[in-house]
Amino acid sequence: MTLKREVICCLFFILIATILFCNAHYITSNGERLENVAISKTQGQPWPMPQSYKPSGIVLNLDVVNFQFINVGVNCEFLTDAFKRYSKIIFASNSPARPLNFQQESKIKSSDSVLNTLLVNSKTGGHGGPSFEMDESYTLSITPTGALLSSNETWGAIRGLETFSQLVYRLNTGEFVVNATDIIDFPRFKHRGVLLDTSRHYLKKEYIFQNIEAMAQNKFNVFHWHIVDDQSFPYYSSSFPDLSGKGAYNPRTHVYTPEDVNDIIQFAKYRGIRVMVEFDSPGHTLSWGNGQPGLLTECYSGGQFNGNYGPINPALNTTFPFLKQFFAEVAQVFPDHYIFLGGDEVDFSCWKTNPIITAFMQKMGYGTDYSKLEEYYMQQLLDIISSLNKGYMIWQEVIDNSAKVAADTVVDVWKGGWEDEMAKVTAMGLKTLLSSCWYLDYISYGSDWERYYQCDPHKFNGTDAQKNLVLGGEAALWGEFVDDTNVTPRLWPRASAVAERLWSPAMSDKLELKAVENRMAEHRCRMVRRGIPAEEPLGPGYCDIEF
Amino acid sequence: MTLKREVICCLFFILIATILFCNAHYITSNGERLENVAISKTQGQPWPMPQSYKPSGIVLNLDVVNFQFINVGVNCEFLTDAFKRYSKIIFASNSPARPLNFQQESKIKSSDSVLNTLLVNSKTGGHGGPSFEMDESYTLSITPTGALLSSNETWGAIRGLETFSQLVYRLNTGEFVVNATDIIDFPRFKHRGVLLDTSRHYLKKEYIFQNIEAMAQNKFNVFHWHIVDDQSFPYYSSSFPDLSGKGAYNPRTHVYTPEDVNDIIQFAKYRGIRVMVEFDSPGHTLSWGNGQPGLLTECYSGGQFNGNYGPINPALNTTFPFLKQFFAEVAQVFPDHYIFLGGDEVDFSCWKTNPIITAFMQKMGYGTDYSKLEEYYMQQLLDIISSLNKGYMIWQEVIDNSAKVAADTVVDVWKGGWEDEMAKVTAMGLKTLLSSCWYLDYISYGSDWERYYQCDPHKFNGTDAQKNLVLGGEAALWGEFVDDTNVTPRLWPRASAVAERLWSPAMSDKLELKAVENRMAEHRCRMVRRGIPAEEPLGPGYCDIEF
Repeated sequence: MTLKREVICCLFFILIATILFCNAHYITSNGERLENVAISKTQGQPWPMPQSYKPSGIVLNLDVVNFQFINVGVNCEFLTDAFKRYSKIIFASNSPARPLNFQQESKIKSSDSVLNTLLVNSKTGGHGGPSFEMDESYTLSITPTGALLSSNETWGAIRGLETFSQLVYRLNTGEFVVNATDIIDFPRFKHRGVLLDTSRHYLKKEYIFQNIEAMAQNKFNVFHWHIVDDQSFPYYSSSFPDLSGKGAYNPRTHVYTPEDVNDIIQFAKYRGIRVMVEFDSPGHTLSWGNGQPGLLTECYSGGQFNGNYGPINPALNTTFPFLKQFFAEVAQVFPDHYIFLGGDEVDFSCWKTNPIITAFMQKMGYGTDYSKLEEYYMQQLLDIISSLNKGYMIWQEVIDNSAKVAADTVVDVWKGGWEDEMAKVTAMGLKTLLSSCWYLDYISYGSDWERYYQCDPHKFNGTDAQKNLVLGGEAALWGEFVDDTNVTPRLWPRASAVAERLWSPAMSDKLELKAVENRMAEHRCRMVRRGIPAEEPLGPGYCDIEF
Repeated sequence: MTLKREVICCLFFILIATILFCNAHYITSNGERLENVAISKTQGQPWPMPQSYKPSGIVLNLDVVNFQFINVGVNCEFLTDAFKRYSKIIFASNSPARPLNFQQESKIKSSDSVLNTLLVNSKTGGHGGPSFEMDESYTLSITPTGALLSSNETWGAIRGLETFSQLVYRLNTGEFVVNATDIIDFPRFKHRGVLLDTSRHYLKKEYIFQNIEAMAQNKFNVFHWHIVDDQSFPYYSSSFPDLSGKGAYNPRTHVYTPEDVNDIIQFAKYRGIRVMVEFDSPGHTLSWGNGQPGLLTECYSGGQFNGNYGPINPALNTTFPFLKQFFAEVAQVFPDHYIFLGGDEVDFSCWKTNPIITAFMQKMGYGTDYSKLEEYYMQQLLDIISSLNKGYMIWQEVIDNSAKVAADTVVDVWKGGWEDEMAKVTAMGLKTLLSSCWYLDYISYGSDWERYYQCDPHKFNGTDAQKNLVLGGEAALWGEFVDDTNVTPRLWPRASAVAERLWSPAMSDKLELKAVENRMAEHRCRMVRRGIPAEEPLGPGYCDIEF
């Protein structure tokens, strides 16, 4: 799912690059510092912005020695674990008093009120793990006489703990303080994803953990794991070990074992993050072929096999039994309801050369319409997934090529012209996700996050009913030029812009991006302080605690 | 020294971005993997390429237990230290046998010859530290009957040890091997620099170390330390502690103490790398003003000081005594012969408003030619530096504005149209450095290192005598969007392209970039294995040992 063959994108890119680059020059002029002073990091403000956020001028001290979370609601292992994590995060030793700085002496004085408890009241637990239907809403009330976090489900409490941890900051005197604040909060969209690609480059488990931790700090709730592709097959399949044995870059070191996969799912689960795995087919499957001979279409030249392979061959009677067994395993390994099935960029040129395909096309009466063959393939696959009681998401081409899909299919829109596509997809009554404007692997000089920030999944022509079919969106970091060396700084805090767009209210016309910038400056330094190497999004400046 | 006000660059950028972006699309097509197979990492080949490199088919085993470097030349602390470092690097535990990989089973079998010694014969020592005049040439002969590294100075031996360490690789069987090879090597250019900017963002000492280590792995020999600028003044001056006390982002945590500076100089010294510090003036000095009141020009509006400051004020009789005392300290702290004095992007607009400047201009008979004032300032400063027995380098504007400079001045060319500028500068008989085409802070999607690779400092119209005045060049990583979170992957291996251009022979017309690519793939993975998070320069792929 990369922006292949779309020359129009080049033109768009030139425009954006010109704007950004020329703009970037402007900010590197001698006037920089004066401009820079205008970026004044907020203190103790949350990201993403809650639906209703009412801070007061009252500053409460936290009692560092005695402070505790007290659970007055349902017991839940996820909450117990979150208490431990957030105690560490809030009072971490790498969160010292803001050291003396002549430029930003704080005038804030803490009050006599001391907060030593956050009562947490979640009505119900986590129902075994995060799901599409989980309730992430919460309210948080911090007053001089006490603090209460309430939610319907543990997942809301976990989101609220993240918010609480962000409200706490330190004075120059070393005191931990929090402003008395009232928050009512819930996500604008239910699906807020980050896509990582472990096929173009393998990512070690520890870097996946690091990015899931960052997702939690930004209230993302889906890790879209584009686990295999043409380039390599790092997923170890218990049913078909040859797939990684012969399709991984290295079957000993560059694979995700069942234990790795489980560790990643568990790590995400405790943070209220679903792991939605993607096995893209019938295209993007070259790496499957080594370990599963006969699966891919053999491409012909001059009447014989030329050594190259194309997409999965739907004309062979071995194909769908294999897929059924493979996806039965996948359905068991990955507990999430949704499996991402891909379906993008199917190249018909190889199919056209293969005599078995040709014979099958004739038999089926498809003539020379290969999109019918694609539809046939997808239909068989969707039926397999349905029979496993799983839901599925697909890239937009499946719809563009007119395949019939089940009513609960979710369509991920990733190409240019997304406004028209989302109007079309939702007019068909299908649910949809937006990825088009959030391809974070495309980089350019300077500050680009505001562009991501201003892209809104509801900005297309459609009825309220259509808008309600938009489940959310995803920040996609494709892996052509990304590996362990740079994945985290490249993703953050650029994905944070997407996070706020998907969680917080839509931008009002009155919104001052300057105020967002100041909060972004605090948020990125907060991530850095917590051990995430989130790169500079704004220009010259510093964090109190550098990475 | 950032590409300010140069609209023409935008146009250039658009062109490049278009080429790269469209090209990038191509490589992300379904054909990726087949293309990718064509990138076949070399094994045990050096970067940068030596002047004469004659590998043989004879593969020698290294005796891991008994292997040692034996000094048969002059004794020198730098060499003793290098032996320790390279013993670790060559036999590091994170350099395991290449694990089983079906795609690249090595067919190489080691011979019966075992190498347990590298004789190192340097005629003279390090003369106290690296200098512009140091001799980095060496010869390395590895044969079945023994191996010898010879040099005139320790610095050549240190370069040769780096080469030797790169020739060693491991077989799948776990054996450390090296090909019998003859090398005659010396740098094409004497000045091969990397510029880091610690003013726009502060870089911790450990990250500066990491990058100096990477420089050593690429045979760079100058760390151009752009230590202060408008944004912050992190250099702690013993003579004027208020400069960092009031000019650093944070005077406790975001400064380089005398100990830090010395540690960095020592770390670089043992690797044959000079530390050339830059204190840019009279522009780019806003951060100096806080700690040195009266130094900067007060800008006027409507007949009175408007609160803004411009460049250093050359019209005040306090200015040059301050500079003399300050640079006397700098000359003592930084042992290198050269101090980089800046002189770029001097904005005359503030000078024009200031009545003291106006009176001084009249007195000096400059009329309204403010470049004469700039020349006056530079002349005084250059005289100060000369009186300290130091040499100096400057940005090209000093010459562009017709200041008279000493005959041994080195001019750093950084703007567009560098071919004409270098022709002009060398026609004046001045020495020069090229930076223009190596501004690595400018990023774009995809693979950009080949563009850096193909820029050659001798590609301008000029006589041999003019070409001989080209001392080399620098890769510049300005700090607007770079800090500890991303400095290393952003710099490497893109700077490696510059390293090879400056060390190795000029590109012949016959050079196959494909072969360079294969060597680049090995080199970047070698850096990764050694702990440098050098990012992917080529597209999908992997390293045996990931970061």
